[in-house]
Amino acid sequence: MVAGFYSDAEDAAERRGLYGTRRIEVMWGDCDAASVVFYPRYYEWFDACTHALLDSVGLDHHTLRRAHDMVGTPLVQASATFLSPATFGDVLVAESRISRVGERGFTVRHRLSLGDRVIVEGEENRVWARVSEGAPQRLQAVDPGPEIKALLEGK
Amino acid sequence: MVAGFYSDAEDAAERRGLYGTRRIEVMWGDCDAASVVFYPRYYEWFDACTHALLDSVGLDHHTLRRAHDMVGTPLVQASATFLSPATFGDVLVAESRISRVGERGFTVRHRLSLGDRVIVEGEENRVWARVSEGAPQRLQAVDPGPEIKALLEGK
Amino acid sequence: MVAGFYSDAEDAAERRGLYGTRRIEVMWGDCDAASVVFYPRYYEWFDACTHALLDSVGLDHHTLRRAHDMVGTPLVQASATFLSPATFGDVLVAESRISRVGERGFTVRHRLSLGDRVIVEGEENRVWARVSEGAPQRLQAVDPGPEIKALLEGK
Amino acid sequence: MVAGFYSDAEDAAERRGLYGTRRIEVMWGDCDAASVVFYPRYYEWFDACTHALLDSVGLDHHTLRRAHDMVGTPLVQASATFLSPATFGDVLVAESRISRVGERGFTVRHRLSLGDRVIVEGEENRVWARVSEGAPQRLQAVDPGPEIKALLEGK
Repeated sequence: MVAGFYSDAEDAAERRGLYGTRRIEVMWGDCDAASVVFYPRYYEWFDACTHALLDSVGLDHHTLRRAHDMVGTPLVQASATFLSPATFGDVLVAESRISRVGERGFTVRHRLSLGDRVIVEGEENRVWARVSEGAPQRLQAVDPGPEIKALLEGK
Repeated sequence: MVAGFYSDAEDAAERRGLYGTRRIEVMWGDCDAASVVFYPRYYEWFDACTHALLDSVGLDHHTLRRAHDMVGTPLVQASATFLSPATFGDVLVAESRISRVGERGFTVRHRLSLGDRVIVEGEENRVWARVSEGAPQRLQAVDPGPEIKALLEGK
Repeated sequence: MVAGFYSDAEDAAERRGLYGTRRIEVMWGDCDAASVVFYPRYYEWFDACTHALLDSVGLDHHTLRRAHDMVGTPLVQASATFLSPATFGDVLVAESRISRVGERGFTVRHRLSLGDRVIVEGEENRVWARVSEGAPQRLQAVDPGPEIKALLEGK
Repeated sequence: MVAGFYSDAEDAAERRGLYGTRRIEVMWGDCDAASVVFYPRYYEWFDACTHALLDSVGLDHHTLRRAHDMVGTPLVQASATFLSPATFGDVLVAESRISRVGERGFTVRHRLSLGDRVIVEGEENRVWARVSEGAPQRLQAVDPGPEIKALLEGK
């Protein structure tokens, strides 16, 4: 079970993490033959939300590549709890928050809602990745340094 | 962490669950700008594997609709651990097993490998869904009956 | 070659067709390993633009189903010309116009641009579809009546 | 209208182009709320068929990158005619043929069938692309040389 964004269980530190919202229109092509969102789409939206969140503090992929020699922030683990279905025509609000800043990675918590109704909650664990020296096909997790970490902590 | 298919921790009952394999060719369009599989694709493959598993015992969607008045097996929860990247040209083997048969739902465990290397492991919790009477937009979880449960238990 | 939206070749009648615009943010997951948009995404956007255009005059899918007994507006033909690549971070403007209103179908012309640069132009030919009587798996093209046609003609 | 693979109109030269087939299982996630294939999927399959065709003569993307300094074969133009719907559970056969080998590009013609019934026919115009010198974000079409052209001509 993914904990809520504003539960009592959350400590104060976590509430300070970088936070952003995003509007998601559910389109015809996002839905399956049961007329509800085909569930992998939610992960596409999680991914888009995380990128938008990083973009909001200047950590877009182009900058990561050029200034930090990174190829992206690949996933280590992801999960989601699907609480209520959504269908085409629905306009969801996604809230995303950095809930953990680790040595070489971070966690993003997402909640998508339709009005008062929560549709899905999920979590992504990601690492900062660089191409391994001498092995262009291999990625390695790297420490992004204190400045990038501070941006994610919302400081 | 998703437990292995054949770990000591698994009880004998679980090992008896319905099991199947599937071949997955990673295509150019499955990969992102880091040249590795865009992670929501893994969930699309999980979904395809689960459908293939249900199909293998006659529980395809057309039959679910006509014979059992169900609209599908929507997700309640899903998770995945990404252990190693895959790229276009890779041919993965997916193993899928029903690891739990509950009152109105079931769990499928998936493992995708490239040779000896495990790429991703994941789990889907699903329910058997029927359109709610008097509320065509609402789905309700239903008990599928002992015959369908026995098929999933691999009996 | 798809003709321009405002070319001299277009007759006055065509310019009157229903018209709308849409903002498209190109996300990381829309791009392939060459770091440009994976081309089927453009068709997903065409589809979303057409649905948004129909929605703008009250012809959303839910209404089509309930009030007009239609299951959608399936494609008969589609084409696109890819003039310039787009990548993640780009924000495109899509312009869509109904360029033909036929007996049982219609044509939508789409143009996606990044500032002054045209990225892609395309066209969709669609029909108004109803489930065939006595054959639930078959769709048939139907005349939607003068009111719907007038909406598409922008009258 | 896309001409048939074996029509009288085709000249002998065209019939000699590189040819291949591919099996496509239509999955639940490929279908939309009308229970038929969401049309951009067909283009994803066209793309996969073209890559499989190039792979069959050793021109996979990894080889294009390493041996020929190319980043891929981006689209210039694509089109499709949708003749009959397909739904989940259907197993399609895709036939793909190189119908034109040009100076810096080529055309692939695709036909997807379900038994005797043709589902969709389409065409892709592609170019051989290299990153422009001094402009890493720009692609330029290049002449791939006589050996690669001969492979596509099926010689």
